[in-house]
Amino acid sequence: MEQQFRTQFVNSLSGFKSLFLIGTKSTTGQGNLAIFNSVIHIGANPAMLGFVCRPDSVDRHTLENIMDTKYYTLNAVGKDFYEMAHQTAARYDRGQSEFEATGLSDQNIDDFHAPFVKESELKIAMKLQERYDIKANGTHLIIGSVENVYLSDEAISDDGYINLEELGIITGTGLDAYHDTHLISRLPYAKAKS
Amino acid sequence: MEQQFRTQFVNSLSGFKSLFLIGTKSTTGQGNLAIFNSVIHIGANPAMLGFVCRPDSVDRHTLENIMDTKYYTLNAVGKDFYEMAHQTAARYDRGQSEFEATGLSDQNIDDFHAPFVKESELKIAMKLQERYDIKANGTHLIIGSVENVYLSDEAISDDGYINLEELGIITGTGLDAYHDTHLISRLPYAKAKS
Repeated sequence: MEQQFRTQFVNSLSGFKSLFLIGTKSTTGQGNLAIFNSVIHIGANPAMLGFVCRPDSVDRHTLENIMDTKYYTLNAVGKDFYEMAHQTAARYDRGQSEFEATGLSDQNIDDFHAPFVKESELKIAMKLQERYDIKANGTHLIIGSVENVYLSDEAISDDGYINLEELGIITGTGLDAYHDTHLISRLPYAKAKS
Repeated sequence: MEQQFRTQFVNSLSGFKSLFLIGTKSTTGQGNLAIFNSVIHIGANPAMLGFVCRPDSVDRHTLENIMDTKYYTLNAVGKDFYEMAHQTAARYDRGQSEFEATGLSDQNIDDFHAPFVKESELKIAMKLQERYDIKANGTHLIIGSVENVYLSDEAISDDGYINLEELGIITGTGLDAYHDTHLISRLPYAKAKS
């Protein structure tokens, strides 16, 4: 397969993906923001999330800041600002803030070390816990603990489920496709029929 | 937080998730099928996908079969059979096939060791490459190489992008919510503005 075709094809195979802007700050105070489509659930108790980080330059700024400072933010991408979020994937210089370059707003909450994205309706404060280096291709799995979550109470159901659609959060496929969603249904806990 | 509330809440934080049925076969020839919402892209060249496997009994049957045989299948969940797919999460006995229990159809393709799900419009033959045991909570990251992909040519764009919506593939949130999607747009490759 031709390389660009292969990249699009293989990146489509993993199905629908979460979209998060990861906010970090360097030891010199430089803010950094990059879009990731690889955030996954690791565990509920203790609450932990992971993401896969590639060894290229865009991801490396995020990784370096997390390794240096331990703290980062996850900011779910919404329909209102997905084009600005996409633009954070461009190769900006180390000294240039993606906040300034894309027009997204840097928000400080509770004096957390890393910056949040004001526009995001689901913001998560994270602390680095573990890093696994994938032998096969030099990518990294970064696992962090959930330190705090900021969202509207109205989106939280009585049973704890968060209505992401109500928050305007969207999903992605491949490298560059953005989709909104429509709930088909929630199903009851699956039990074996006797 | 009360435990069930916490489980629903934290499982909602990671955003929209891919939904795949993982098909395996035991060394004694017993087919196994289980739904996973943690499949992620690891790399395009070589083509590799990962998924997170919990240490509970439902996931463990899948993990044991993969460790024993090295082969498994990923079958994207479609709108036409998501209720049957959800039912594979029930705790069936080791000797009971989820294919028989849920009504999904076992399909053999090219004599691959593991069974495919006939109803799925995107089927991927996988071979185990690496396993990482997550210290913090006993989960496992399983990484495999893509050995073969089966889907309709009509869903593949000229640039390699796969139109998952056209294949009826859906996405999930939390533990039990199923959503279909609507493409907002595909964006051009992000470049820094000079």
